[in-house]
Amino acid sequence: MQNYDLIIVGGGAAGITAMIEARKFNFNAKILLISAEKKFYSKCALPFLISNEVKTEKISQSVEQMCKSMNVDFVFENAIAIDIKNKSVKTKNSEFFYKSLVIATGSYCEIPKIPGVDREGVFTLKSLEDAEKIKSYAKKCKSALVVGSGATGIEIAVSLKKLNLNVTIVEISDAILPFCLSKDFSEIVAKKLKENGIKLLTNSKIEKILGDIKVQGAIISGNEVSTDMIVFCTGLKPNIKIAKEAGIKVDKGILVDEKMQTSINGIFAAGDCAQIKDRITSEKILSQLGTTAIREAEIAALNALGANENLSQGIMNSLVMKIFDLQVGKTGLNEQEAKAKGFEIFTGKVKTLTKEEYFPEAKELLVKLIFSKKDLRILGCEILGYEHVATLVDLIAFAILKNSTLDDFEKFDYCYNPAVIPAHNALVLAAKNARKKLKYL
Amino acid sequence: MQNYDLIIVGGGAAGITAMIEARKFNFNAKILLISAEKKFYSKCALPFLISNEVKTEKISQSVEQMCKSMNVDFVFENAIAIDIKNKSVKTKNSEFFYKSLVIATGSYCEIPKIPGVDREGVFTLKSLEDAEKIKSYAKKCKSALVVGSGATGIEIAVSLKKLNLNVTIVEISDAILPFCLSKDFSEIVAKKLKENGIKLLTNSKIEKILGDIKVQGAIISGNEVSTDMIVFCTGLKPNIKIAKEAGIKVDKGILVDEKMQTSINGIFAAGDCAQIKDRITSEKILSQLGTTAIREAEIAALNALGANENLSQGIMNSLVMKIFDLQVGKTGLNEQEAKAKGFEIFTGKVKTLTKEEYFPEAKELLVKLIFSKKDLRILGCEILGYEHVATLVDLIAFAILKNSTLDDFEKFDYCYNPAVIPAHNALVLAAKNARKKLKYL
Repeated sequence: MQNYDLIIVGGGAAGITAMIEARKFNFNAKILLISAEKKFYSKCALPFLISNEVKTEKISQSVEQMCKSMNVDFVFENAIAIDIKNKSVKTKNSEFFYKSLVIATGSYCEIPKIPGVDREGVFTLKSLEDAEKIKSYAKKCKSALVVGSGATGIEIAVSLKKLNLNVTIVEISDAILPFCLSKDFSEIVAKKLKENGIKLLTNSKIEKILGDIKVQGAIISGNEVSTDMIVFCTGLKPNIKIAKEAGIKVDKGILVDEKMQTSINGIFAAGDCAQIKDRITSEKILSQLGTTAIREAEIAALNALGANENLSQGIMNSLVMKIFDLQVGKTGLNEQEAKAKGFEIFTGKVKTLTKEEYFPEAKELLVKLIFSKKDLRILGCEILGYEHVATLVDLIAFAILKNSTLDDFEKFDYCYNPAVIPAHNALVLAAKNARKKLKYL
Repeated sequence: MQNYDLIIVGGGAAGITAMIEARKFNFNAKILLISAEKKFYSKCALPFLISNEVKTEKISQSVEQMCKSMNVDFVFENAIAIDIKNKSVKTKNSEFFYKSLVIATGSYCEIPKIPGVDREGVFTLKSLEDAEKIKSYAKKCKSALVVGSGATGIEIAVSLKKLNLNVTIVEISDAILPFCLSKDFSEIVAKKLKENGIKLLTNSKIEKILGDIKVQGAIISGNEVSTDMIVFCTGLKPNIKIAKEAGIKVDKGILVDEKMQTSINGIFAAGDCAQIKDRITSEKILSQLGTTAIREAEIAALNALGANENLSQGIMNSLVMKIFDLQVGKTGLNEQEAKAKGFEIFTGKVKTLTKEEYFPEAKELLVKLIFSKKDLRILGCEILGYEHVATLVDLIAFAILKNSTLDDFEKFDYCYNPAVIPAHNALVLAAKNARKKLKYL
């Protein structure tokens, strides 16, 4: 019989972070990691692997070595059951007993059940193996369809374009990046994609995949389109099967409280499989971002070993990506989401430059701030530009954490140097624009 | 007799901002601008004019045209006296009467009274004319001394180096940028200057300038050094003469309250000439930054026309500059200043990268956060790096505005994308480092 102070199920960002934090917190705890994945890597780096911008060996580490260096036991198998009564996790061949458990089973890519999805040349991108398969298959291809235009879909489309394929994005809704940007900002990203030769099919649904053995085409909203490969980026589903079967409370994901504890005492969950409180709406949401996984796993691991940490402030869902040279960022609620969630809002928008205009390196920057009409609180932002985007998103995320309002942005005392950042700050300009709109609302 | 609702004395950043804001606020007010400067330009851009990175016509505008377009009267003379009893401003030839007055007389460069300062080839940099003179004279020179290593001194030294002169910086204290960085960070900037061929003489004092008509050298702490030109950047002195003579209360600068009003009702001051409350220490300080001038002038102009705005939150003194490719930023108090002001502090430091390390474009970033031991409040930061610096400084300035503490940084929910910004945020890493130090204090 094998007894552990802490068992961690899953070797992704959440599982590995939980392991590292647990070991840092308690030098003596007996810890076991159960994961089928022998390599640890950043899932966010996978699109860049496809485009040869980064190398596999640079982004991956051996889980075995990580475990050994931290004096953590490991089992390279899938966990197939949790027994909450006996406090054990079962794999195909063994059973391991825990005092505390962290579930970090992650998520999987869902492929719609349409005819032809079993053809050669149909992919999803979730693992290092997936990325290598896509990269290798793409060498034989002239064209590709990417289904779904969330952040990952767009990033894969850009990567395949960099490999000189003819790339078409298929999106079921009327605009790309529907969960990230509102329509006005989404259209600017769409323009950038088109300028770089990527074709967009919005309001379009893939209905059938054509080809006998290999993919040769697809039926999209009734029209036949020829293509050599298809990558589905139609959404991540949390891996909640073993949690659900064990009797742990689940919704879309495993429900956790502010301490990352599930409905069962001593069992915690973190990462893509967990469903946690949104900062702005207080709804329990699936965040499915690497940063969220890291933060949740830190809290879960410490609490599993007796600490009393919490994530009471909720999750911000800050996001940034690079589409060719254009950076795209958001945090909190975008304009469209805020309206959909029933907030009465007003926005401040500005199109400005990243340096004083007389500097040749000055580049465009677009900022949209979303405020609540009720209390003038900042709810989120959408930002597009060629530099400053990530750190501006972070500034707004920090402002939301501190319950900041329109006044705070108007009073904001920023830095200036014509060669680095303009005398009239983008956030202050956006705030002033918002104030003007508020007056005439 | 010429009567005005508002007279503004001074045509720099503060004066011109006051004019624009006043006109935006009140379409009908009768406004007069009194200034000897016929061109309006960004003083912060002057070093880049010397190095030919920007052109004069790009950074300057005609004050006359600006005034005309805003229906503001103007007089191109120096104001020589204020009569607070009769509410008038006198120039050499006229007298103008105000209901409200904004004093924005700026500052001048002080040159130490040492033998030889009247030689040809001795400069300061305050105006567009100064920049053009330096640029023109530098064409005939092989070497230059820059006296003073504040932000302007360093920027001028870099500009002259870009013109291929042999440049030496003379600094009286033991490190460069003494008001911006602590010694550990200052040394990194010193290294960057040396790598780019600029010579540094710290703990050094210029005692005498050599040469009969033109500068040929100088005695520096007893040693003779040969040089073709000398630029003094030894500090700005507020222009307070007419205010003082009028009976307005002055210290180093013109003392103002949170509404930017001086000791005399209806008379306001803004910009380099004003002395205002520091955010952190609550001491009345000279900020002498372009951004401070803009913010003060906005408040002063509106209040002068009957509004009720204030700068109760004080001044942050956020600063950013570019030294060759290295960006240098600070806000609030740096480590050295915080100690000197009597704060019991602890710091968090981190050396990290601007992107994930497997991205070839990832560049170094150094962050130091300064916290108060008493209440864990953030007091300031020092940041060095090749990107993200300005917006990180802004984030810290915002955090200070919101009275943020170490906890807020530990909880900070940031964005991540390996191609844009790393999974482990620099500010969170610095906060964790600070927490560790706090534990062992």
